[in-house]
Amino acid sequence: MLRVGYPVTVPAEFLSSFPAGIELIPLSDKMDHDVEIEVWIPDPYSTRAMRTWPYLRGVRLVLAMMAGTEWIPGVVGPHVTICNARGAHNVSTAEWTLAAILASLKYFPLYEDVRRSGKWARRFEAAAHYAAIAGDPRHIYPPVLQEELTGKTVLLVGHGAIGQEIERFLAPFRVEILRVARTPREEPKVHPVTELDALLPQAEVIVLIVPSTAETRHLVAASQFALMRQGALLVNAARGPVVDTDALVAALQAGRIRAALDVTDPEPLPEGHPLWSCPNLFLTPHIGGSTPQFAPRSLQVAADELRRYMAGEPLQNVVQAAI
Amino acid sequence: MLRVGYPVTVPAEFLSSFPAGIELIPLSDKMDHDVEIEVWIPDPYSTRAMRTWPYLRGVRLVLAMMAGTEWIPGVVGPHVTICNARGAHNVSTAEWTLAAILASLKYFPLYEDVRRSGKWARRFEAAAHYAAIAGDPRHIYPPVLQEELTGKTVLLVGHGAIGQEIERFLAPFRVEILRVARTPREEPKVHPVTELDALLPQAEVIVLIVPSTAETRHLVAASQFALMRQGALLVNAARGPVVDTDALVAALQAGRIRAALDVTDPEPLPEGHPLWSCPNLFLTPHIGGSTPQFAPRSLQVAADELRRYMAGEPLQNVVQAAI
Repeated sequence: MLRVGYPVTVPAEFLSSFPAGIELIPLSDKMDHDVEIEVWIPDPYSTRAMRTWPYLRGVRLVLAMMAGTEWIPGVVGPHVTICNARGAHNVSTAEWTLAAILASLKYFPLYEDVRRSGKWARRFEAAAHYAAIAGDPRHIYPPVLQEELTGKTVLLVGHGAIGQEIERFLAPFRVEILRVARTPREEPKVHPVTELDALLPQAEVIVLIVPSTAETRHLVAASQFALMRQGALLVNAARGPVVDTDALVAALQAGRIRAALDVTDPEPLPEGHPLWSCPNLFLTPHIGGSTPQFAPRSLQVAADELRRYMAGEPLQNVVQAAI
Repeated sequence: MLRVGYPVTVPAEFLSSFPAGIELIPLSDKMDHDVEIEVWIPDPYSTRAMRTWPYLRGVRLVLAMMAGTEWIPGVVGPHVTICNARGAHNVSTAEWTLAAILASLKYFPLYEDVRRSGKWARRFEAAAHYAAIAGDPRHIYPPVLQEELTGKTVLLVGHGAIGQEIERFLAPFRVEILRVARTPREEPKVHPVTELDALLPQAEVIVLIVPSTAETRHLVAASQFALMRQGALLVNAARGPVVDTDALVAALQAGRIRAALDVTDPEPLPEGHPLWSCPNLFLTPHIGGSTPQFAPRSLQVAADELRRYMAGEPLQNVVQAAI
């Protein structure tokens, strides 16, 4: 029997598609003795998983439930193969991205404030908001109360599985899409990352959906903000360190751009951090992947990988091969 | 020369596509003498337009900038032809509808509250919110922080131009779409309004996008709320009177359903009205049509109608023929 450790907090019904020949070992984050397992499915919350790890013996394969696995190699070391749950987050993260773009362009944080105040006439504050962010002092009548996504130019920074899913959700909006990624391609045209600065001035919406690596750290910093159009919307659906937080705070406070973030650096964002109260900011606390469908979908990816592992077939979602 | 009155507040550049042979008469809402015009383009804000009307003489045709013209017949009487700006609101209203659905399913009002409080850990309040609204007491791990639109069942009540545009934006979400309208059709299947009650229990999202008429008044009232699924999302992108407000407030306060509204009855919603503070409510103050593209697009519709009027061709967007 192959011994597979999984988080005790995951309902057993989500493991029903696991292959036969497995002994499932529930693991808590309050272990008091060592456990011998060959395959480890860590708790999706890394702080819990890290409390479990010191009690595990014999782990050869880690099957993560998340797409982002940046904390795992430093914990388990180089002699363990690590697979991510590739694909499990595509839909939920792409939906969050479209929702965040629309919420920003339609001033939903302002209107939530109007709702709380109970004063209908405050809707006209939106017109001044539009004039300031668009840098357009012309008198426009009737007053602008929301903007349209339709027809805008969107720059996708990253064009992996989630980036392509975002593009699918953008299709009905007839946007012009520009693409940048590590690996340039034709059909559709994907520019190399070296062309990011040249493309930035064209974009009205910029979506970050690259993995967090040494190469993508601070990919968007002060010189990139300087190249953005007045009022451009920066959407971070990737990881906090892809953006230089100090430069972002400065650009927001100057009224130069707006931002929609599901991730921050540092994360969790500590109380009192200036980002919490920046103007023109839409912020959610890393909710992108966490839908009711997440755990079953993610564990289905793990089940498929386990079947390949037991059959001696090549694994499909390896992010670190054991040395 | 055909004398055409238009709101002085509209920038003249938006009238550049009007046909030759017209004398354009700017009209304010603070008139002090009568003006003879044949065609009237009323201010899109009805309260302003109504202050102008008593000073107008000889009006035979009204070209409204809005899709909803319910206030106009009572003001101008039956001897004037009224056309609406059919199509000018399709994109902006359909975008608002998709944005409001996503904002509700992703708990954006809750997260705006989290952002203001500056406490990242409050994100876990979303899990209790989900359990309550879904009526699903099962322990789900990891915690649900947002829901997906993908795969849900959406009932469109109304299937005119805006309803069809909403369907276009919904396509990438692979939702099951049910349709109800005054005129039943096949391909795609549109059920008659008499089948609304039979379809309501199937829907997870219900979108109202019907005109405001005597037939649609209180189309959704207490007996309809009773038929809805626990946690169903009612989206009103139509007009306030389509929903019985008292029944809506009761259903929201009981935690039975959730709602996303851009329109209310009464409107403007007065200070202190219970709707402002109902739980599970996303509310914007009638912003659906008001984008930077609204006035130019709407006046293009008017320009095309004027050209037909001057050529003696049939008008295309008549909502009231003069008697």
